Amino acid sequence: MNIEPLCHIQTAFKDKFGIPRQSGLIPEALGILEFENNNFNREALRGIEDFSHLWLSFIFDKAIKDGSKSLVRPPRLGGKDKMGVWATRSPHRPNHLGLTVVKLLKVESLEKTISVVVGGVDLLDGTPIVDLKPYVPYADIVSEAKSAWVPSPEKIFKPKVFWKEGVRELLSGEEAELIEKVLEQDPRPSAQKDDKDSYVFKIFDYQVKFENGKEEFRVSNIKKL
Amino acid sequence: MNIEPLCHIQTAFKDKFGIPRQSGLIPEALGILEFENNNFNREALRGIEDFSHLWLSFIFDKAIKDGSKSLVRPPRLGGKDKMGVWATRSPHRPNHLGLTVVKLLKVESLEKTISVVVGGVDLLDGTPIVDLKPYVPYADIVSEAKSAWVPSPEKIFKPKVFWKEGVRELLSGEEAELIEKVLEQDPRPSAQKDDKDSYVFKIFDYQVKFENGKEEFRVSNIKKL
Repeated sequence: MNIEPLCHIQTAFKDKFGIPRQSGLIPEALGILEFENNNFNREALRGIEDFSHLWLSFIFDKAIKDGSKSLVRPPRLGGKDKMGVWATRSPHRPNHLGLTVVKLLKVESLEKTISVVVGGVDLLDGTPIVDLKPYVPYADIVSEAKSAWVPSPEKIFKPKVFWKEGVRELLSGEEAELIEKVLEQDPRPSAQKDDKDSYVFKIFDYQVKFENGKEEFRVSNIKKL
Repeated sequence: MNIEPLCHIQTAFKDKFGIPRQSGLIPEALGILEFENNNFNREALRGIEDFSHLWLSFIFDKAIKDGSKSLVRPPRLGGKDKMGVWATRSPHRPNHLGLTVVKLLKVESLEKTISVVVGGVDLLDGTPIVDLKPYVPYADIVSEAKSAWVPSPEKIFKPKVFWKEGVRELLSGEEAELIEKVLEQDPRPSAQKDDKDSYVFKIFDYQVKFENGKEEFRVSNIKKL
């Protein structure tokens, strides 16, 4: 069966490193779904603003080249224990389909495009979106649902974030705020949190370097790409 | 992009008529996902029982031949008003991807197959399943989500169901119970509820006929197919 991307989402996340591990964790992380402003799309988006949240189905396109795995090491288990891929949200799954819920912020109709702006995204910039659905509370909220090994986000370690003098000033307020939020989620790979003294990752059009204190991170360098 | 079915779900619903309008409405509606008992599948399903509920991504394969529509008439609006397809869960969408949450009941490992048995399904028998994911409460429950036009199921009319003498006895207890639950959901097409005196539909291996009273339905005939 053949499926075609509806569009490729635009986000600040240019690297896998730094992407929130679930949607909704960082409301400030924006995504833009840009549709051509034609008759089909104008009609197909009618009424979407009646919903506060949307499901995005997407393709983990960067994982396709690695094929699929039957066993994966979920970050939530510390990256050590193996689980069956169907018991996880891992990208390394047959068909490479992903699912995420985002907040609908606004729909902007311009001359050539219609943009659907969403918040709380956990997607790499350019990820192909293959479906868009309203989040329907009475069907999608399963209040009795239980999961054995996924902790609530409150239980996860939250580092303090500092900036080397003069570095924060290189960024807009929104950019600096998103970088702080990303670091507060502790983006280090779970299996090797203390292996490196510093990390470098890409976000927006910057390369960001931060020093790895055990309970705090210090942003030491920002380089425009 | 090419995607392949993992399996085709087995359900009692042989007709579009009678399928619950969302998952979870009829817990007794079972589905079976049958995987070949091979090494990949044994590993890939490891740990799935740690979760009470699963997301199934599927293809609305019966809708493919009709292509996609920009505007649809959702049953919840009485089948009259048109909405943009992205503001609905309609099958008539580009890529024809569907999404439903089901309860995981058991995983049965036999010599040649591994069956994942789920409850609360709203899928046609034989629907191709293209992804399987754990329902993760802290990511998937969006308690602040709002939707403008989808009523809670409590507000929907619930007819009384009666049986013509001798008819219920043609069925097993489980079959009769599921048929009652299906009729209590009022499966009549929303735009033409009082147009017909009786309806016929297929479920399990039966053709079921019921008489259309305004506030009650009477099952008058069961024919083995």
